[in-house]
Amino acid sequence: MTTTLLDLPTPAALLERPRLEANIARMQRRIAGLGVALRPHVKTAKCLEVATLQRAAGARGIAVSTLKEAETFFKAGFDDIVYAVALPPNKVPAAIALQRAGCDLKVIVDSLPAAQALVALAQLERVAMKVLIEIDSDGHRAGVKPDSDELVAIGRALHEGGMALAGVMTHAGASYDCTSATALVAMAEQERSRTVRAAERLRAAGLPCPVVSVGSTPTALTAEHLDGVTEVRAGVYAFFDLVMAGVGGEGVCRLDEIALSVLTTVIGHQADRGWILVDAGWMAMSRDRGTAVQAVDWGYGAVCARDGTPLAGLVLHGANQEHGIVQVDGGAGDATLAERFPVGSLLRILPNHACATAAQHEAYQVVDGERVTARWARFGGW
Amino acid sequence: MTTTLLDLPTPAALLERPRLEANIARMQRRIAGLGVALRPHVKTAKCLEVATLQRAAGARGIAVSTLKEAETFFKAGFDDIVYAVALPPNKVPAAIALQRAGCDLKVIVDSLPAAQALVALAQLERVAMKVLIEIDSDGHRAGVKPDSDELVAIGRALHEGGMALAGVMTHAGASYDCTSATALVAMAEQERSRTVRAAERLRAAGLPCPVVSVGSTPTALTAEHLDGVTEVRAGVYAFFDLVMAGVGGEGVCRLDEIALSVLTTVIGHQADRGWILVDAGWMAMSRDRGTAVQAVDWGYGAVCARDGTPLAGLVLHGANQEHGIVQVDGGAGDATLAERFPVGSLLRILPNHACATAAQHEAYQVVDGERVTARWARFGGW
Repeated sequence: MTTTLLDLPTPAALLERPRLEANIARMQRRIAGLGVALRPHVKTAKCLEVATLQRAAGARGIAVSTLKEAETFFKAGFDDIVYAVALPPNKVPAAIALQRAGCDLKVIVDSLPAAQALVALAQLERVAMKVLIEIDSDGHRAGVKPDSDELVAIGRALHEGGMALAGVMTHAGASYDCTSATALVAMAEQERSRTVRAAERLRAAGLPCPVVSVGSTPTALTAEHLDGVTEVRAGVYAFFDLVMAGVGGEGVCRLDEIALSVLTTVIGHQADRGWILVDAGWMAMSRDRGTAVQAVDWGYGAVCARDGTPLAGLVLHGANQEHGIVQVDGGAGDATLAERFPVGSLLRILPNHACATAAQHEAYQVVDGERVTARWARFGGW
Repeated sequence: MTTTLLDLPTPAALLERPRLEANIARMQRRIAGLGVALRPHVKTAKCLEVATLQRAAGARGIAVSTLKEAETFFKAGFDDIVYAVALPPNKVPAAIALQRAGCDLKVIVDSLPAAQALVALAQLERVAMKVLIEIDSDGHRAGVKPDSDELVAIGRALHEGGMALAGVMTHAGASYDCTSATALVAMAEQERSRTVRAAERLRAAGLPCPVVSVGSTPTALTAEHLDGVTEVRAGVYAFFDLVMAGVGGEGVCRLDEIALSVLTTVIGHQADRGWILVDAGWMAMSRDRGTAVQAVDWGYGAVCARDGTPLAGLVLHGANQEHGIVQVDGGAGDATLAERFPVGSLLRILPNHACATAAQHEAYQVVDGERVTARWARFGGW
């Protein structure tokens, strides 16, 4: 018996496999074309099947955002892992345990105190941890400045402390705020040049720096060249989302490339207010409002027909825990709503931010149009 | 061996048991004092242990937001359940299955088409479902207007279709937007009076209406009387949160009554920007920004010391997936940050919205101050 969308309880996370595979192939082709390795960030999907497709397409290693991801993927045979969040002392024992179990784990520090604490703890355990220094290439979040004295001091502390200084890494998170294609290209170049600059300074100080790792989906898809870079990390490209469809003004994907959506059932109407009530609230979509600062604000999501065709003018305007409010054309009263979208109708909602929406679900219903072909588990927690 | 906060991986959801028990006792005392039954909404905690404490304190029955909650709590011995979201046709079979298994389930409809669909499906299965009609008491979301012709038409369709018309229910979600204590009291009275009015209209039409169910935490804690009401549903009161501490201007709880917090580790600094980086991002806190529209905007959360003491002037200003940015006093540069909050320090973050933050975690670490006394599982999904 064929399973279709009609057989699914709602809300449900749908993953369009043809789009997923096309997105994976696109990024792999692009990064290979720039002459560097692609290391997918598995924090978006947190799903073994997705990472397996990425590896089969040519990806080398993975990046993770939690040690639980590292442990889970390592157990499943992914042994080249960058834990891309700065490692505090209380997480060093778990990182050492992973390395001792045979995982080729690279950890991150971005300050001298953290480097010194890591050295002290690793020396006690007689382990040489592989360490990347996080570079602040955009003032967006974490990392040490590429021209700072602290960069070389960290490198020296790690190297002289017996750690394997693996190189430098950055994440140009500020790329999400770019409002033009030109700004995106410039951000990609800034990410590249500042990180390469940090690598050169370490090498000039006589320190090893084999890895130069950069990455964000917007910069990965717009960089004109990646001279001096050895690998790109990116995550959301596998699914894409509305933020990626709007980033840099014209976006780095089209709506019909977004692989993740939420299947929802119409549960009611407020015809006088132009509202359709659905069973996808923030529990199913997340509270992410990433498009609120973009040229096109999609509310909590873009509404599509059951088959995935966008319904122009319909957005998920409001979200309570298990109630979503779909608003029709600015919310004008509309007595025909119940006829056009009767209670029980199925709709799909494209998410603002795939990482956040996916995190609200325990599994993906893998679909090809209206046909459900598989259920892939995902995991959460720490 | 005693387990303390120092033994927990971070981020972790902490539940202060003394506060939880005091919050449960406070609401139970208040609602009993108003002469009606309290039906806790278990969507906030989704935790058997919490609901067990609520029952032990005197609560009667539970409200749920998903059929999975209904199924899980029914299996654990909670058999008086209101599924407080409108039931679309594709969920009727699961509701019937629960009732057949012995669950005293009440379902909700708020339109004539939904009532007719329910009647048709239930008649096919020869089951008399117990049904509440949802009343729109505040224009906030779902429900039928108390003075509408549709209300009586729905009642008649259910009653004449052989369903057990159990009564009316409402949720004054607009109470969350009240900015003064006076407005909250007025909203509570509006919620009560409009729902009672709906009940009276059904009875005047010769229809049964034994249950008159209202509820939201803010109105439950401010209603001056509940004449004509038979039960109050409320959920977030068990945990409270920053939104509840600010609702109606002066709030319905104090900061030191908030039972849920997220334990986080300092992972870095950007001293020139006055930032402390922590490992609680939106994955641990949710993207909820409920206090953004209140008099005091707490960003993604209020920062406390490890023991729970609020640290004045510190808020979780930014949140990426696994990075939080704590900002010190407006974000001015501060060279002493690393001394005051060294890498590896533990902090607690009080959440904007407990339902949303709790949903990001698989379990609660139950604590009494810095001592961890239990781990209570919670569940998600549909």
